[in-house]
Amino acid sequence: MQDVQKQYDSRRMPIQKTGIKDLLYPIVVLDRQNKLQHTVGTVSMYVDLPHHYKGTHMSRFVEILNELRGKISVSTFDDMLATITKRFDSDTASLEIYFPYFVAKKAPVSKVESLMNYDCFFVANFNKAHHKQPLDLIVGVNVPIMTLCPCSKEISDYGAHNQRSIVTIQVRTSRLVWIEELIDTAEQSASAPLYSLLKREDEKYITETAYNRPRFAEDIARDVAVALKKDERIIWFKVESENFESIHNHNAYAMVTRNRDNTDVRKKKDFK
Amino acid sequence: MQDVQKQYDSRRMPIQKTGIKDLLYPIVVLDRQNKLQHTVGTVSMYVDLPHHYKGTHMSRFVEILNELRGKISVSTFDDMLATITKRFDSDTASLEIYFPYFVAKKAPVSKVESLMNYDCFFVANFNKAHHKQPLDLIVGVNVPIMTLCPCSKEISDYGAHNQRSIVTIQVRTSRLVWIEELIDTAEQSASAPLYSLLKREDEKYITETAYNRPRFAEDIARDVAVALKKDERIIWFKVESENFESIHNHNAYAMVTRNRDNTDVRKKKDFK
Amino acid sequence: MQDVQKQYDSRRMPIQKTGIKDLLYPIVVLDRQNKLQHTVGTVSMYVDLPHHYKGTHMSRFVEILNELRGKISVSTFDDMLATITKRFDSDTASLEIYFPYFVAKKAPVSKVESLMNYDCFFVANFNKAHHKQPLDLIVGVNVPIMTLCPCSKEISDYGAHNQRSIVTIQVRTSRLVWIEELIDTAEQSASAPLYSLLKREDEKYITETAYNRPRFAEDIARDVAVALKKDERIIWFKVESENFESIHNHNAYAMVTRNRDNTDVRKKKDFK
Amino acid sequence: MQDVQKQYDSRRMPIQKTGIKDLLYPIVVLDRQNKLQHTVGTVSMYVDLPHHYKGTHMSRFVEILNELRGKISVSTFDDMLATITKRFDSDTASLEIYFPYFVAKKAPVSKVESLMNYDCFFVANFNKAHHKQPLDLIVGVNVPIMTLCPCSKEISDYGAHNQRSIVTIQVRTSRLVWIEELIDTAEQSASAPLYSLLKREDEKYITETAYNRPRFAEDIARDVAVALKKDERIIWFKVESENFESIHNHNAYAMVTRNRDNTDVRKKKDFK
Repeated sequence: MQDVQKQYDSRRMPIQKTGIKDLLYPIVVLDRQNKLQHTVGTVSMYVDLPHHYKGTHMSRFVEILNELRGKISVSTFDDMLATITKRFDSDTASLEIYFPYFVAKKAPVSKVESLMNYDCFFVANFNKAHHKQPLDLIVGVNVPIMTLCPCSKEISDYGAHNQRSIVTIQVRTSRLVWIEELIDTAEQSASAPLYSLLKREDEKYITETAYNRPRFAEDIARDVAVALKKDERIIWFKVESENFESIHNHNAYAMVTRNRDNTDVRKKKDFK
Repeated sequence: MQDVQKQYDSRRMPIQKTGIKDLLYPIVVLDRQNKLQHTVGTVSMYVDLPHHYKGTHMSRFVEILNELRGKISVSTFDDMLATITKRFDSDTASLEIYFPYFVAKKAPVSKVESLMNYDCFFVANFNKAHHKQPLDLIVGVNVPIMTLCPCSKEISDYGAHNQRSIVTIQVRTSRLVWIEELIDTAEQSASAPLYSLLKREDEKYITETAYNRPRFAEDIARDVAVALKKDERIIWFKVESENFESIHNHNAYAMVTRNRDNTDVRKKKDFK
Repeated sequence: MQDVQKQYDSRRMPIQKTGIKDLLYPIVVLDRQNKLQHTVGTVSMYVDLPHHYKGTHMSRFVEILNELRGKISVSTFDDMLATITKRFDSDTASLEIYFPYFVAKKAPVSKVESLMNYDCFFVANFNKAHHKQPLDLIVGVNVPIMTLCPCSKEISDYGAHNQRSIVTIQVRTSRLVWIEELIDTAEQSASAPLYSLLKREDEKYITETAYNRPRFAEDIARDVAVALKKDERIIWFKVESENFESIHNHNAYAMVTRNRDNTDVRKKKDFK
Repeated sequence: MQDVQKQYDSRRMPIQKTGIKDLLYPIVVLDRQNKLQHTVGTVSMYVDLPHHYKGTHMSRFVEILNELRGKISVSTFDDMLATITKRFDSDTASLEIYFPYFVAKKAPVSKVESLMNYDCFFVANFNKAHHKQPLDLIVGVNVPIMTLCPCSKEISDYGAHNQRSIVTIQVRTSRLVWIEELIDTAEQSASAPLYSLLKREDEKYITETAYNRPRFAEDIARDVAVALKKDERIIWFKVESENFESIHNHNAYAMVTRNRDNTDVRKKKDFK
């Protein structure tokens, strides 16, 4: 049968990224507490396509994923993407995986345990031309938190509006940083962290804690940024905080992004 | 050209609903303040299909929508759906429209005006066999509100968790009920209503009002239900309240649905 | 601390459903091929609330879920929901779980294996008052398929438009019906089934198969309905087919729902 | 009342972007056919915040939007964003608006007219420090099209799988480019364009046209890229094509992005 993808293309237009998008796949990820965690990933895989080829053999991406049997670890992305560039004869390869991740947390007073879910992601870009450091890896977490408005507290005789917010942290690092560490950083910046299970004594504690720690979206972004800046393993970060305001039907938003000073980090584009 | 849809089907399986789903269309709806409002509808239109026909001529739905030039009014649904049953030679016809609807609201203290958006919908089912009352119409609104937790307030020395919530009201009525009336009912049940624009004095007022009016999801559902039950125009309702809890990453939910007592309302299935 | 939820409510308005909505939780479900499958569920749990109680103790739902450690099986829903009614002192309890489910499938010609994902759900309603048969269980699957338009094929000199479609099957049964059986029924009704991994010889086979089996949305709904009607274990079903038309930006839709004739099935409302 | 936002912040962490996100607002946009078009926008507005200020006065964004009364035109973004930087005393300001846009199209054979909807967006970034050219504007369109697979056609004895796809075009330009022109470019690259209303003779024409014009996702991206590269008004573009494959439950994707050669375009980051 004819290999249409391999035909010659005369438009002289190379393609930066082509591949498969949003394939659901059961995956196993590293877990600091329990070593391994079963979850479900939404996977996208891409390569570049030189100007003279008509198309990409998309089924090869799925073959490579099948060979891994869903074992996804940041420590093997390098090999995996190198393999992809070889099989596709491409210069670059990239991988995006989004997945819900669960962490067992103890309620602050009763100490009852429950599982909290966090939407996490890895975005890995591999480039053969960058000989010494071909892999560029972003680790990301979305951490739901509680924020209590400093302005509302200050100007009101009693009470203060508060709400669920999402902090999104993305980092590039020189050494392993656990997802759990990023979650901790986000939760420590919050008016209060969230839990799936709270007894009455915990709810009292969370309510009062949040009232004592009012934070704007800007405060969250700054506190996380200050913490990440201090962490020597982190060479780039982007922090976003979005508050689902309880007094409005729109959201409040703040973003800080930085490269580590005096670090020879390649100039890279922000990943959304 | 052959009319494939009109071919004979031998499976002896009538189809209750067939048609087009999720067509975006610019629409003009009645507005209590300004007479008419331009917005964008997501429109679905269906008929039944007798067992002996193979298919439906789906393009006719779009032709009928085009003839109306986007003028959508509950007062003309009856005619529109009767027309559909004639053109399709069907016994039933139905229409669902979802649309954002804007209402100008004055902030509680400063009186500055801003537009709040509410996701609204009409669901109309027409049945030729129901001679006297062929049209069954549901009017629905989704009203974002603020809820402040009564338990959190009671057990805490200060503060109380609160959050954005959505109240969904659906009604069948014997006489016109304005969307704005349903929105008012939802907002009056709230710990506080939401606004797009609040000055500092308004934020203080909203914060304190909410602190003085703690409401569970159950309270919202009940208060709206009590108000709708008193309204003689309303012959059926369904109220749902969903709180995007600021202390959890899941939601709290409550639902009440009722027929008016002693009303000869046809037994109908809950929508959605 | 005061138990606010247990306070007396004077509005005389019972609540049909109240509880927690959209809690993400890692679950293990029964799998015909591999006995057990790890996946991630979106879980909602509800009870009714008598008119004289102010609120529901929502944290108890999460406690019950934790006790099960995520082991979700339709065979234990009865016990689980009976437990809920006891702990909440309620008359009814209900459970909804949505989850991606993976099935290993062999490509039609090359026989290469890959995993396909299907969004599935269980909706279980328990009512103490229905002594003999307190549990009402709906099993649902969303099956992506390919549909090729019979009209387009008939009227065109060559080619025929086709597209991805979703078939949703919901059933109530008298005996166990596997999710895999419902998936098979949906895929057998299709112009062609979908696969994550297809080699060239498979793509040829799928393309030609689909061209030889043109189906309207109405055909899919009917074929599935005919198959389910023949299956003596099934006492109620609802089939929906939605085509993401490749020639339009809106969808084509068809729905058939039926109770088994001569079966003493309780009159129940359509789910969703 | 205290102005909490204006308080001094000692963390020495400037914020690149802070503001309001996802406010729904009725807008009026320029329309090549009818001069003006009513639609509904999802609006986000941001400024930077110097390190010494604690917070942003978010309500001012809504005030500015209200003053415009929803009249949104790319020709006034410059003034609008300059106004924002003045009112907020910020160096930068940005605006994102997403909106459904409708274009009347004639079916290819019958010439019946119908409205097609396209999700469009403007992303405008203003920077006082860039004295001569402070405004950076991206115009974007999402164009649903039909794609027919060249490989499937080539290897199959009859038929070819095809599907709905979305082409996303983003451009920076030196002179006005109409949304309608970008839509045309996308539709001309397609196997066939989509319509809301097609008569039988049109469906035949579209089916055969698509069969005669097979295109991979890579072909779409390339053809659009070649057309945009030729257009002298365009100084930067990004084209994405995503096919909702009718034979898979995942999508095929291709992306090309380029700056105009020999153009003094500021180095800018890809949007999204």
